[in-house]
Amino acid sequence: MSYSIQTALIPTPQGDETGYETGYKTADLQIQQDKIAAIGSGLPPVGCCIDARDKLLLPGFVNAHTHSSEMWQRGLIPPLPLELWLAELYDFAPLDPEQIYLSALGTAVETLLSGGTTVVDHLVLIPGREAETIAAAVRAYREVGIRAYVAPLVQDEPFGANLPALSKSEDLPAPAMSTAAVLDLLQDAVQRFHDPAAGINIVVAPTGIQLCSDPLFEGGAALSDAHHLCRHMHLLETKAQKILSQEKYGCSAVAHLKRLGFLNQRTSLAHCVWLDDPDIQILAETGATVVHNPLSNLRLGSGIAPVLKYRRAGVNLAFGCDGSASNDSQDLLEAIKIGSILHNTTDFEYRHWITPRESVEMAALGGATGLNAADQFGSLTVGKQADLVLYDLTNLSLLPRTDPIGLLVLGRPTQAVDSAWVNGRQVVAQGQVCTIDVPQLRQELFERSAWQNPRQSSMRQAMEARYREVMGLEV
Amino acid sequence: MSYSIQTALIPTPQGDETGYETGYKTADLQIQQDKIAAIGSGLPPVGCCIDARDKLLLPGFVNAHTHSSEMWQRGLIPPLPLELWLAELYDFAPLDPEQIYLSALGTAVETLLSGGTTVVDHLVLIPGREAETIAAAVRAYREVGIRAYVAPLVQDEPFGANLPALSKSEDLPAPAMSTAAVLDLLQDAVQRFHDPAAGINIVVAPTGIQLCSDPLFEGGAALSDAHHLCRHMHLLETKAQKILSQEKYGCSAVAHLKRLGFLNQRTSLAHCVWLDDPDIQILAETGATVVHNPLSNLRLGSGIAPVLKYRRAGVNLAFGCDGSASNDSQDLLEAIKIGSILHNTTDFEYRHWITPRESVEMAALGGATGLNAADQFGSLTVGKQADLVLYDLTNLSLLPRTDPIGLLVLGRPTQAVDSAWVNGRQVVAQGQVCTIDVPQLRQELFERSAWQNPRQSSMRQAMEARYREVMGLEV
Repeated sequence: MSYSIQTALIPTPQGDETGYETGYKTADLQIQQDKIAAIGSGLPPVGCCIDARDKLLLPGFVNAHTHSSEMWQRGLIPPLPLELWLAELYDFAPLDPEQIYLSALGTAVETLLSGGTTVVDHLVLIPGREAETIAAAVRAYREVGIRAYVAPLVQDEPFGANLPALSKSEDLPAPAMSTAAVLDLLQDAVQRFHDPAAGINIVVAPTGIQLCSDPLFEGGAALSDAHHLCRHMHLLETKAQKILSQEKYGCSAVAHLKRLGFLNQRTSLAHCVWLDDPDIQILAETGATVVHNPLSNLRLGSGIAPVLKYRRAGVNLAFGCDGSASNDSQDLLEAIKIGSILHNTTDFEYRHWITPRESVEMAALGGATGLNAADQFGSLTVGKQADLVLYDLTNLSLLPRTDPIGLLVLGRPTQAVDSAWVNGRQVVAQGQVCTIDVPQLRQELFERSAWQNPRQSSMRQAMEARYREVMGLEV
Repeated sequence: MSYSIQTALIPTPQGDETGYETGYKTADLQIQQDKIAAIGSGLPPVGCCIDARDKLLLPGFVNAHTHSSEMWQRGLIPPLPLELWLAELYDFAPLDPEQIYLSALGTAVETLLSGGTTVVDHLVLIPGREAETIAAAVRAYREVGIRAYVAPLVQDEPFGANLPALSKSEDLPAPAMSTAAVLDLLQDAVQRFHDPAAGINIVVAPTGIQLCSDPLFEGGAALSDAHHLCRHMHLLETKAQKILSQEKYGCSAVAHLKRLGFLNQRTSLAHCVWLDDPDIQILAETGATVVHNPLSNLRLGSGIAPVLKYRRAGVNLAFGCDGSASNDSQDLLEAIKIGSILHNTTDFEYRHWITPRESVEMAALGGATGLNAADQFGSLTVGKQADLVLYDLTNLSLLPRTDPIGLLVLGRPTQAVDSAWVNGRQVVAQGQVCTIDVPQLRQELFERSAWQNPRQSSMRQAMEARYREVMGLEV
């Protein structure tokens, strides 16, 4: 399959004397099979021609951290900090693999319609039906045709161990799965589903230091090395986790993970809100990537990640939406906007602030780099996979005409994605996802849900007094 | 004109034991002329019937601070702090009243399609064509049918006086308009355009302490009293303004404005980022309203307004988008979301955090209160003006069904507004603004603009060294 995208606007490095880039040119692209075969001006058309006049062409972005099944609880959980919010989330998690399938479809659709062509799904597993959960998500991503990194969220310590001072308690129940059972599950998922050429990747993804043992990190790292898998985890999202890591390891979680050998160029770390300068240095040295999830960090009151420090230290950054119950959306352009401008309040030196061009690069190439795939996608480069997005610049939200990338990143584009391709396959056409029946998806989501009456989370009630004590809040 | 809205979902105070409200009921509304005549269950239809099944009905929100003509520069200005950003803005401001008309239309359309039925336009005036500028904006708002508070942005000190230590300089040019000329302009605008019953209001709106003399505040207050006009201004948006107010008055700007008699229940104050506790107390005592513009405060690095402190002190709050060049959009739902969750990072006591219900109340009733109009609109109350918005809950961005207001505020609704009414007149139907030709507006905005090449702001260049010195940045 060959085709051409004709007369698209693409960015060039041209800019003003302060280095602020605002240049564009019109260009034609030739796509052959799944790859970008040529980029130039006045190229002869190959195969069918797509007219991209008045449209902006960019590499697809990476939604570098989410939990798809949280879609079932979006809009629902009260304003609470992570630890109490999690209790509410777990108490009412979906338990039917068909729900997992539907929310993965929904997550993929919203990601595609906001410029993303790759999703990293840190997938919450249904207890006792773990393998079915993974199969349901993989089925959805194959059908939609988004590039997917399915990262089963695993742990080998019981819920409750995630709060400081309780972690050494004898009162905790036994963990739901042993370390060996977790590693077997992952090994099995790799054998059944890992197929990078087809756009489906299995990722080794312990939930985080708060619920995982050292053997799980070590076993996960070995599995990752054996199969060249990416590694993913939450890291120091909250102050409570920072307190816990001192208690558990007697040092920072980052130093401990380095010692365990879990940090390398295939490792992406969601959140990284509570890192100190020496931790940041470790990230830079090991080549690990920080996945910035600004909206959930605000929604859960976790804090503002030191993103400008990461940039200055040379740490690679990517953007994630995080799960829909802590965001409560999967609009990647929103995450990119807020994750860029938020940090202007953390440094009066405006020369450190993130420009729209830099945001786009973080979202595309930064995302690909975090998946150890910067040589495969993430930029408009001949030879790379055709993961592309075309934005309609005649949309009211992108008018009047000024700087297209400025409008896209700093504005609030609505329905601006005209077309998208993953691995060369068109997945969005004329503003609609064209690989699945979206009206049918809406109907299913509608019928399987209800406008809620008040609910009570027993797990939250059980944890709240303890949480308040740990955090020094009035009990 | 009478009509009924049948079987809409509306919020009720029902909630869980912690006070978190999630109750809804279905209700019918009767509208007679411009007012809500009845709300109840099973009401007999009057006039034509609007089927509101699977739709959420809320009072229209107030976009309580914007500058419509900034739409011409959205997406364009580099990441810069307010003072340098302003120099870029002024150097390339639109100079044709027809542009003012078009950007006011655009501002109204985006506000309506994101839940707003009222806009406060702190209108930047074309030098030498001030009266025409006001007339152009008023014409646009009348045509769209949005409730408008047109607040001509006036000043009687020269640009450049807004930087500390320069303010006493002899080198500044004479101001463009004298105090008397400014007050005459406002008086004239009141006589020509002020017509609250028709939804057009003129507001007394000095730009702020950084460019206005005491006689302008006093003369403006007198004009406001004579005609029962609202008052509006920027207040302590940046650290530089805080430094300036000490230099100019020897005290806080808030204390000075109180002495001048500018603060009362008809006064709304945009930004209020750099207030201290005694300042907050003054706002609470005088009944002035804080208009929270979270996105521009981030975009310009101004800071995070102490919104949770305002709430605890009993200060009324409203939300604004601010101008499109500092946001860079007019999506009120985005401002409400970010302006709500942003503050969770400023207080570990999550019981102080803003709930989605409270956000909606700030956006609607808080906005009306700031315009001294809480008895006229801002809630679903019999006898109030019918300023209403109906949201389509079958939109993918609001599915699966959970808590409709949670989804609306914490999610990222796209094209969720199905219908809107202002003063009882329908202005949005089936997701489209139905009072003006929006495709024609897009065409005009497209044709009058161009994808920009790099530009240089001479005013910014002239100010930058001075700004960096004032802010203690490396020169």
